[in-house]
Amino acid sequence: MVSTIPLLDYLFNTRNVAIIGASADSMKTGGVIFNNLIKDGYTGNVFPVNPRYEEIGGKKCYSSISEIREKIDLAIIVLKAELVSDAVKQCVKKEVEYAVIISGGFSETGDAGKKLESELLKIIEGTGTRIIGPNTVGIYLPYMRLNTSLTPADRVNFPGEGRIALVSQSGALGLLLMDEMSEMGTGVSCFLNLGNRIDLDESDLLQYFESDNRTDSIMMYIESVADGRKFYNALKAVTRLKPTVVLKSGITETSARAAMLHTGAMSSDDAIFDGVLKQAGAVRASNETELYDFARVLAYNPEMRGKRVAVITTAGGAGVVSTDLLTSMTGNGKLELSTFSDSTKSAIKSLIVPFASAANPVDITAEGSVDTYEKILEILVRSEEVDAILAFALPQTARMNESIVPVIKKYSKFKPIVVSIIGSKLAIPLLRKFEGEGIAAYPSITRAVESMKALHSYYRMRGGSGD
Amino acid sequence: MVSTIPLLDYLFNTRNVAIIGASADSMKTGGVIFNNLIKDGYTGNVFPVNPRYEEIGGKKCYSSISEIREKIDLAIIVLKAELVSDAVKQCVKKEVEYAVIISGGFSETGDAGKKLESELLKIIEGTGTRIIGPNTVGIYLPYMRLNTSLTPADRVNFPGEGRIALVSQSGALGLLLMDEMSEMGTGVSCFLNLGNRIDLDESDLLQYFESDNRTDSIMMYIESVADGRKFYNALKAVTRLKPTVVLKSGITETSARAAMLHTGAMSSDDAIFDGVLKQAGAVRASNETELYDFARVLAYNPEMRGKRVAVITTAGGAGVVSTDLLTSMTGNGKLELSTFSDSTKSAIKSLIVPFASAANPVDITAEGSVDTYEKILEILVRSEEVDAILAFALPQTARMNESIVPVIKKYSKFKPIVVSIIGSKLAIPLLRKFEGEGIAAYPSITRAVESMKALHSYYRMRGGSGD
Repeated sequence: MVSTIPLLDYLFNTRNVAIIGASADSMKTGGVIFNNLIKDGYTGNVFPVNPRYEEIGGKKCYSSISEIREKIDLAIIVLKAELVSDAVKQCVKKEVEYAVIISGGFSETGDAGKKLESELLKIIEGTGTRIIGPNTVGIYLPYMRLNTSLTPADRVNFPGEGRIALVSQSGALGLLLMDEMSEMGTGVSCFLNLGNRIDLDESDLLQYFESDNRTDSIMMYIESVADGRKFYNALKAVTRLKPTVVLKSGITETSARAAMLHTGAMSSDDAIFDGVLKQAGAVRASNETELYDFARVLAYNPEMRGKRVAVITTAGGAGVVSTDLLTSMTGNGKLELSTFSDSTKSAIKSLIVPFASAANPVDITAEGSVDTYEKILEILVRSEEVDAILAFALPQTARMNESIVPVIKKYSKFKPIVVSIIGSKLAIPLLRKFEGEGIAAYPSITRAVESMKALHSYYRMRGGSGD
Repeated sequence: MVSTIPLLDYLFNTRNVAIIGASADSMKTGGVIFNNLIKDGYTGNVFPVNPRYEEIGGKKCYSSISEIREKIDLAIIVLKAELVSDAVKQCVKKEVEYAVIISGGFSETGDAGKKLESELLKIIEGTGTRIIGPNTVGIYLPYMRLNTSLTPADRVNFPGEGRIALVSQSGALGLLLMDEMSEMGTGVSCFLNLGNRIDLDESDLLQYFESDNRTDSIMMYIESVADGRKFYNALKAVTRLKPTVVLKSGITETSARAAMLHTGAMSSDDAIFDGVLKQAGAVRASNETELYDFARVLAYNPEMRGKRVAVITTAGGAGVVSTDLLTSMTGNGKLELSTFSDSTKSAIKSLIVPFASAANPVDITAEGSVDTYEKILEILVRSEEVDAILAFALPQTARMNESIVPVIKKYSKFKPIVVSIIGSKLAIPLLRKFEGEGIAAYPSITRAVESMKALHSYYRMRGGSGD
C-alpha cells in the first residue's frame, strides 16, 4: 500500500475545490456550503457543479466536473445517496485527489446503504482518488479558510488558526467542540470529520500529523477503530512527537450498541483498547471536556519530569480543595504535593505576610500581589523539589490583575504551569488572556488538576517521569 | 442550650446594621463595606461607628455603638484583631444579636490569635449575642440587599435572589462560586461565610434552613465540622425537606494539613465523614463545580423514582458518550439506560426520519424539530420504562431553537429532566434561558450525567428509588 502522506499533502494544501450539487438556493445544503466557502474567504478557487445552473453567486457553474479545465484537488459531494456513485466515478476520471461525501443515507441507515458504500470502494480501488465520509461534515482548515461544513456560521463559531488538530468520527460533536473552543479563543490546525469512514481513516491522519508543522497536539473522538494494527502503529509513532488525546466512546455494552446505530461502527472490547492506548503512549479522555482540556495542557507545556506539584494560591480554600483532588486517585492516577525544604520555606516566608502559609500549598492570601506571586514562582521554578506548578490566578483581590499573565508566561518555559481560575466577571476575560498566550488555564479546580494528571501520564508513558 | 432558630430569624430579617470601624476612606475595608451596603441598596438602616468621624457619606457617624438609639440587629466589626474584644463587649451591652467579625488575625495565625478567640467566647457566654467569624467575609442576603463582603462589586458579580442557600467555611471560595453562579443567572437565597467559626456554625444554619421558605436546596463547603453529633442531627433533619450538597475538603492527610493552615480547622477521618453524610441523606460533591451543579439538579427536579434513564439527542455522538458516562461507575454510582418496549419504540419510530434511532438513546438527528422533540418527550414521560430523561438541547441545527425551553419546562413537572448543551454561540444564551426557567442545564455531558446520578443518589438514600 502506498503511503498516505504525500496524498494528504494535497488535502491540506487544496487549491481548487469543486462542489458537486452546488445550489443557488441558500436553504439547501449545496447552497449553504457554497456560501460558507465564499463568505469565509477560502483562499483557493471554488467551482460549483450542477447541470441546472449557468452560474451561482456570479461564478460559472459547470454541468459536470469533467468540464472544469483546472486540476481539482477536492470535490465536495452534496447529492442524494443513490447519485453519489456516479459523481465519484467522474471524480476518478478527473483525477480528483479527495472526494468529501457530505451525503447521508449509507451504512448508518442499514443494509442498502452498506451496499452503496461497497460500490464506492470498488470505484476508487486502485485509483488516486480517496474518499472522506460518507455522512460527514467534511473538513475545516482555518489557515486557508476552507470550511466544507454544512452548518451556517450564525449557529456555530469556528475557531481561528491554532496548534491543535481535531479528528472526530462524529460531525456534530466535532462542530460543537469547535464552537466551545472558540469561546475561549483556542485555535485549531485542522478539523476533519471521518463520518462513516469507508476509506480515509484516523490512522492516515495520525501519520500525516507526525510531520505536520502546524500541529502540536491531537484531539481525537472515535467510536471504533478502522484497523487496529494500523492504528496502533500510527499512534505509537505520532505520540513520540505530538501528544495525542483520545476520547473513545462505546465502552459499555449499551453504548457500543448506541455507537453502532450512530455511525455503523463496531466498537471492540474496552479493556483491550485501553491497553493499546497506553502502549502507544496516548492519553485517554473520558468526556468531551477532558478531550479539549488535555490537548491544551499537552500542547502548551514543557516536559513534566515527576509527580511533585507545588500549589500557589491567594484563596486558602482553593488550595485545600486542589490538594484533595491532586492526591486522590482518578482516571490518570494521582500526584503528590512537593515537600518543601527548610530553605525553600524560609525563602517563601520572607516574601509573604505573617499569617500566610509558606508550606505547600503556598497561600499568599488576599494580600498577595503580582510582585509577590512572581518572586514565589521564581523560587518554585528553581527548586529541585518541584516538578510542576498549579497556579491559582484569581483576579478578584485588590493586588491581583492581568499582569499575572506575562509573569506566568515567563516561568512556564521552564516547568509545566497549569492555571486555575474560578468566577466569571474578571475570571472569563483572564482565562482568554492566558489562552491567547498559550498557557493552559481552566475555569475549575478539577479541570486544572485532571489536566495536570494527564500531562504527567503522557510523560510517564514516555518513560520521562518517575512514578 | 436554647434553639438557634428564633435567633437566626433576627439575622435573616436584619433591619439595622452598625459598622464598627466604618471609614470615609474608600480604600480601607471599613470604607469598602460601608459603600457596598449603601450602593447595593440595603433595604434596612446603616449606622457607621468610628470615633474619628462626625459623618460618613452623609450619614451621622457614632463614636461608639452605645450612642445609637435604635436597636441594632447586626454589627459588622472591621477593626484590628486586638481591638475586637472591646467592640464585642459593647455589642453585648447594646444587646446586638449578631456580631460579624470581618477582621483576621485570630486562630489562623497561631496561638496568640487562638487566645483572642477564647476571650471573645467568654465575652458572649450566657448573653444573647452571637458571633459570625472571625476571619469572615460575612453574609449576603439578596432579598434585602444586605452584603457585608469586603469585595468591591467591580471585581465579583453577586447573584440575584434564588432558591439555593450557600454556606462556606472559606470566604474566597464562596465569593468565587457566587461570581460563577451569576454568570449563568443562578440566584441564591443567602450566602454565609463561617470563617473561623468560633460560635455560629454550619449546624445552626442547617436547622434554620429546615423551615426557611426562601430555600429549596443547600450548598455547603466545609473543611471540618464544629460538632459532629449536632451536625449529623441537623443534617438528617434538613435533608428530609431540603436536599443538601456538601463539599468537604481536607480528605487526604496532605490536604487536612492545608486546611488546618487555612482556617485552623482539624478535619477528621474522611471515611467516617462519608458515612455520616450517607446516613444523614446528604449528597457529597468532590469539587466546587459539582457543589453548584448538584444543588441545582436537586432544587429544580421532582423525585427520581428509579435508575432507568432515557436519552434524547439530535447529535448521535452525544448520545453515545452520555451512555458511556451514565452506565459507568463514578462517585454517585451508575445508572441504567431504559429498555424500550416494542410499543414505545414503534410510537417513537413513527415520529422520526427513517435513519434516526428509536432505540435508547433516541437520536432524532439534525433533521429533528422542536415539534418532534416534544412528541417524543410526551412518550417518554408517559412510559413506565423511564425514570428520568437526559435531554440534549443542541440549538445548532436548523430545526432546533429556543422554543425547546417551554417544551422541556412543561414535561419537567412530571419526571426529572436534566439538560445538556455543548458549544458557545447559541449554547450559552440557551443555558441561561433554561436556568431562568428553573431547569437544570449543563454545558457539558459529564456535568449533566453526574448531576443526574446525584439526583438519583439523593432519592435512593431517602428510600424512594430502587437500586
